[in-house]
Amino acid sequence: MKFTLQAKDPLSKARAGTVTTAHGEIQTPIFMPVGTAGTVKAVHQRELEQDINAQIILGNTYHLYLRPGLDTLEKAGGLHKFIGWDRPILTDSGGYQVYSLSKVRKIKEEGVTFNSHIDGSKHLFTPEYAMDIQRTIGADIIMAFDECTPYPCDYKYAAESIKMTHRWLKRCCTRFDTTQPKYGFDQTLFPIVQGSVYKDLRVKSAEFIASMDREGNAIGGLSVGEPAEEMYAMTEVVCDILPYEKPRYLMGVGTPINILENIALGIDMFDCVMPTRNARNGMLFTKNGIINIRNKKWENDFSPIEPDSDLHVDLVTSKAYLRHLVHSKEMLGAQIATLHNLHFYLWLVKQAREKIISGEFYEWKNQMVKVLGNKL
Amino acid sequence: MKFTLQAKDPLSKARAGTVTTAHGEIQTPIFMPVGTAGTVKAVHQRELEQDINAQIILGNTYHLYLRPGLDTLEKAGGLHKFIGWDRPILTDSGGYQVYSLSKVRKIKEEGVTFNSHIDGSKHLFTPEYAMDIQRTIGADIIMAFDECTPYPCDYKYAAESIKMTHRWLKRCCTRFDTTQPKYGFDQTLFPIVQGSVYKDLRVKSAEFIASMDREGNAIGGLSVGEPAEEMYAMTEVVCDILPYEKPRYLMGVGTPINILENIALGIDMFDCVMPTRNARNGMLFTKNGIINIRNKKWENDFSPIEPDSDLHVDLVTSKAYLRHLVHSKEMLGAQIATLHNLHFYLWLVKQAREKIISGEFYEWKNQMVKVLGNKL
Ligand SMILES: [Zn+2]
Ligand SMILES: [Zn+2]
Repeated sequence: MKFTLQAKDPLSKARAGTVTTAHGEIQTPIFMPVGTAGTVKAVHQRELEQDINAQIILGNTYHLYLRPGLDTLEKAGGLHKFIGWDRPILTDSGGYQVYSLSKVRKIKEEGVTFNSHIDGSKHLFTPEYAMDIQRTIGADIIMAFDECTPYPCDYKYAAESIKMTHRWLKRCCTRFDTTQPKYGFDQTLFPIVQGSVYKDLRVKSAEFIASMDREGNAIGGLSVGEPAEEMYAMTEVVCDILPYEKPRYLMGVGTPINILENIALGIDMFDCVMPTRNARNGMLFTKNGIINIRNKKWENDFSPIEPDSDLHVDLVTSKAYLRHLVHSKEMLGAQIATLHNLHFYLWLVKQAREKIISGEFYEWKNQMVKVLGNKL
Repeated sequence: MKFTLQAKDPLSKARAGTVTTAHGEIQTPIFMPVGTAGTVKAVHQRELEQDINAQIILGNTYHLYLRPGLDTLEKAGGLHKFIGWDRPILTDSGGYQVYSLSKVRKIKEEGVTFNSHIDGSKHLFTPEYAMDIQRTIGADIIMAFDECTPYPCDYKYAAESIKMTHRWLKRCCTRFDTTQPKYGFDQTLFPIVQGSVYKDLRVKSAEFIASMDREGNAIGGLSVGEPAEEMYAMTEVVCDILPYEKPRYLMGVGTPINILENIALGIDMFDCVMPTRNARNGMLFTKNGIINIRNKKWENDFSPIEPDSDLHVDLVTSKAYLRHLVHSKEMLGAQIATLHNLHFYLWLVKQAREKIISGEFYEWKNQMVKVLGNKL
């Protein structure tokens, strides 16, 4: 993996860069659609490429490990081939999903034992095994196995937790550095800064993560329920410590406003289920604010979802029709709304990049955050 | 509406024709994908046009009347504009859906009272109102309001039922012929032959329907549970009576084999939920037989769903991946399987048409029906 910086905003810490992977380039700042089980829900791969122009997508190690499983993924030649996606992929380590989806789990120094949310079967994820699994999935960027603390989290727990996360990171790096990719192309490992909402813990964690000198770094454990201001404060502290010349990935964030504010603090990569999950409930993000398409007010509004968009469904789908589809629980409603939201998120980060390059980011961002949260 | 015949198969009663509507031509024999609530489930309109090349789709009057409702449909300028579909549309009359979906219903001479399956609200469909509703929906081809008898149905009930269906038909024709289309293009009304599985009733009904001299005719009340041989026997009897020079539409049929056998008996138009509904359960129709993609045998089969297809998803989706998607209840599984099945049904009727024109239909059909039912 290679990262080059093209531009830096003069009035904020925002930057525009390019991540180069074996599966092509990613222009940053970037949003990565979440493809949990090897599919971005309701979207064809062709649409991801041609309509959304997604540059990289996410896969969830926990889900893929349980289904289709490592045997199938390895026989397929990795996740790219299995799902028919030739652009970059990033996988999380499975840790977060174990904590959030599996009811029965136990964290020990060795790793985490958990029961599958599908069939109840018992499994153990260790830092080493998380690396092996991600070698088999074959994503371009893989994530360290960490403990993602919940919010709120008491100080003592958070302090102990980062210590273990750091010990686990060393084990991840050792395993990663002594194993080979399985499908003939390079993978890279991003470590994750934790520390809940405690500034000193975040500093400590960021310093340790920076000292590991990997090709890129991530910030985890945010956007888990804390106020946005606390999130921004943590991002700022951490970005000031993480190396300038390496990409920074803020995991699981967020709303369009969250994304712009964090770009201003120096974040390069984002992922979040919000545009896809909320689409399925009829919430549309637009450049003028948020539309709840279920509302009665759209019943006879035959104007396009977004008239000045270059996304096909934005132009040919009326608000009234989309409302009808969502009300009728028709799959096409989820399909159209998901395309719209992902297209919007990708548009937003592309705009941000252009504004950073043209030196206008800061003012543009301040204008945008005033309207993006409006309820239309 | 206009119907012209291009060719007739020398060894069967199959024919190739062209139906011309205000929204374009339909090459027959044709299969019409079912778009119940103004959407062919899981398929974008662009995919219907460009990937499936659907020439005409169906809408269900019962569903559209309840949601989005006539007010919205009329304000939109009709169903074509509401859903963004510029090719022909056919609507059923709502009768069949009232009988099958509404738990509380009462059939009287005046019409049918029923309670909405959505909110329990009470409604009355009369033959006249069914015409008015279909004027408002604005399909190119609309259907008479009839009673579709269940299977089995005793002779006496069926005999009384066709009498009422015929009286209702007269009322439909009177209403249709004394009202105008609402959106500036012509609509046409197809009457429906009923009579359950009783040959003499089917003869009587077909003679009455033929005597009404509409532009096209339909056969209803088949594929409701009776053996295929009884269905074919009824189709044959009725096709021999319905005018040769008008299109014949067999409602709600059926499997690929049913379709080929009924084409051989002189049917021009088909609709059925089977390719779309079964797709959502993982059943794929192919030219070599039926695939249940949920089966373990496809777990590590990385070959394309259908290697010699001209449908994009058939080429880029492996059986193993589709199996994974269907098992994981991912929408993309339903999306891909639906595209596949509709593409196959449209391929099948297009092949049938070409074979009729080249004079090879009968032999080809006999070959195909030997393999289409195979379990792969
Ligand atoms: Zn999120
Ligand atoms: Zn059917």
